[in-house]
Amino acid sequence: MFNKTMQGYGEQRSVIRALFDYGTKRKQEIGEENVFDFSIGAPAAPAPPCVGAEIARLMRELPSEKLHGYTPSAGDMGVREAVAKSISAKFGVPMSANLVYMTCGASASLVLTLSAALAPGDEVIVPSPFFPEYGVFVRQAGGVLVPVATDAAFHPDLAAIGRAITPKTRAVLVNSPNNPTGAVYTAAEMRALGDLLREKSGDVPILLLADEPYRELCYGEAPVYPMTVYDDTVVLYSFSKSATLSGERIGYIAVSPRLRGAEALFSAICGAGRYHGYVCAPALFQRVVPALLTAAPDPAFYRKNRDLLLSALTGMGYECCPAEGAFYLFVKALEQDAAAFSERAKAHELLLVPSDSFGAAGYVRISYCVGRSVIEKSLPAFSALMEEYRG
Amino acid sequence: MFNKTMQGYGEQRSVIRALFDYGTKRKQEIGEENVFDFSIGAPAAPAPPCVGAEIARLMRELPSEKLHGYTPSAGDMGVREAVAKSISAKFGVPMSANLVYMTCGASASLVLTLSAALAPGDEVIVPSPFFPEYGVFVRQAGGVLVPVATDAAFHPDLAAIGRAITPKTRAVLVNSPNNPTGAVYTAAEMRALGDLLREKSGDVPILLLADEPYRELCYGEAPVYPMTVYDDTVVLYSFSKSATLSGERIGYIAVSPRLRGAEALFSAICGAGRYHGYVCAPALFQRVVPALLTAAPDPAFYRKNRDLLLSALTGMGYECCPAEGAFYLFVKALEQDAAAFSERAKAHELLLVPSDSFGAAGYVRISYCVGRSVIEKSLPAFSALMEEYRG
Repeated sequence: MFNKTMQGYGEQRSVIRALFDYGTKRKQEIGEENVFDFSIGAPAAPAPPCVGAEIARLMRELPSEKLHGYTPSAGDMGVREAVAKSISAKFGVPMSANLVYMTCGASASLVLTLSAALAPGDEVIVPSPFFPEYGVFVRQAGGVLVPVATDAAFHPDLAAIGRAITPKTRAVLVNSPNNPTGAVYTAAEMRALGDLLREKSGDVPILLLADEPYRELCYGEAPVYPMTVYDDTVVLYSFSKSATLSGERIGYIAVSPRLRGAEALFSAICGAGRYHGYVCAPALFQRVVPALLTAAPDPAFYRKNRDLLLSALTGMGYECCPAEGAFYLFVKALEQDAAAFSERAKAHELLLVPSDSFGAAGYVRISYCVGRSVIEKSLPAFSALMEEYRG
Repeated sequence: MFNKTMQGYGEQRSVIRALFDYGTKRKQEIGEENVFDFSIGAPAAPAPPCVGAEIARLMRELPSEKLHGYTPSAGDMGVREAVAKSISAKFGVPMSANLVYMTCGASASLVLTLSAALAPGDEVIVPSPFFPEYGVFVRQAGGVLVPVATDAAFHPDLAAIGRAITPKTRAVLVNSPNNPTGAVYTAAEMRALGDLLREKSGDVPILLLADEPYRELCYGEAPVYPMTVYDDTVVLYSFSKSATLSGERIGYIAVSPRLRGAEALFSAICGAGRYHGYVCAPALFQRVVPALLTAAPDPAFYRKNRDLLLSALTGMGYECCPAEGAFYLFVKALEQDAAAFSERAKAHELLLVPSDSFGAAGYVRISYCVGRSVIEKSLPAFSALMEEYRG
């Protein structure tokens, strides 16, 4: 009776959300402390203190009708200038406030950028496994998602990406540090990817779209800035994870000034903002952004979780990916069918997302962005689960 | 090189925004107090005091990772319950929290509801003149906007609407109090519209979509609640105008529980939320909503502006619509070509939006949601403009 596509997206539940909802119900039944909910990437670290301080200062200093009023669609110009300056200073690349578009978070950034960049039928290559909503966002823009399997360590397989490029390839979408694997692509890999895209681009360049909400949540060398390795790059950033502001919907799109047709792409992003009904990014949190740019996020909260979980699970005999960044541990399921393994884990009150919806078989994703006590209390359950399989 | 549709929407500037940008530049040239900027609907009344008080309380009482974290996609359940209770209590209609979806403001509400409700080629009737972005939002959903001229007082012409209904008509979209005319539809008109839609609906009902950001900005009898006159109704509400929160992007969609297929439509709205990249409405401002529901907005600020402007302009000989609500005065241009009239007004530093982009010829829209001094100081300019034409 209504729109079939939207009904489909409404009814076809995300596996992650379904498991999260199961967890919410289960916690009511047996107590919150008895369910080990590793289902969703909702950060448990407190927001940086500057968030509260800035909100209080802004409310004191600006009249409410200015503070909470419309900003221009692309964002408050002072905020866009602060973002551009910060990118230039941190990464040594040219950046212009005129090419920074403030958004309602990473999903909005992806929808607007893909809508602006793709013509119907254009292909977008994504290293697999990948965040499942990428498929929804590419399809809504009329594009075709082309997953390309990563190597054994879940790093990009450049030869395979090269083979997947066709005349219809319009973009490669990378997410490093990665959800769901925790992989962080090396500088050498990113440079090689830049070389490949330069070689393969024709008159119309293949865009590098870098989805970077986890940039600062990295436990080794800092990731290279994508604009330094390739000109035709768009960076999509969000403060959801690094500043624990996932509910406030605040992020930005930064189009490299060196991208061919940068201004035309930016204008199309503005058009996509109108088209999808985004009037402006939330005004108060836009104005909190300049303070967030100078407060370097501290990944220590998640690093401690990772260290504890990684060493404990490895000690028990689980096969874990290295977890170089983000707050996800990708672990080999103890049987071939990841969904069946996830079901058996549930009996131990462990909520682990099977890897199938990320486009990979045989793994589970553990979101360790939880309070430390959840991890500590969960270890006997992980151990019992292993015992069960060893029989 | 990029998506042509989005490039088109990006380049084709909105007339309102173009005039607003002209005003911003002009103010820099000759001083803010010398430009009479009636171009955009950005409220100048302070936000209600409960906004600041609630934000301070929430920051004291909730840990930051809860306060700023993800809510469910449809919104925080406590907030949705408060909205549902408030609708039931104020308007005497059944309402369920399960049919309330918190959104990033009115534009998002329109995009999600139209995306959810329309199949390709479905028609949406709108009384004309109307808010220009309606055309963008209906087209993005694959629909066709069918403007139907209002009567001489800019109230709905029910006979004409009846004649415009075809088997493809899926919805009638009404906006009362109206942008740009300030008309407020009477209870009798709304009841007659309900009767007409009941009569014309087949197996698939024609939906009544009520865009109500100006509900409380009404200077006569309060508008009837649309769900009381017609079952197959969806109300789209925003706090942008009534609570001066236009930049914070907070509003809701309320699907009448009596709407045929209400749950399926709601599920499709959830699907549309995923599709367009809206993860959830901004979390902090969701939590401010319950306080806003009990703080009855006071239209006095705008009523005083209206009274002053209406009596002054009428006294000078301008032909004005009654301005029953919202904060817009629709005034007959002093020549046939509204755009030419708007240009001549500019020479008097008066920024008035020509009516053509609203789908009507020969008028200008005056947004009187400005500080009172702007109106007071503008009166000699309006007078000089009239003199010039009488010349």
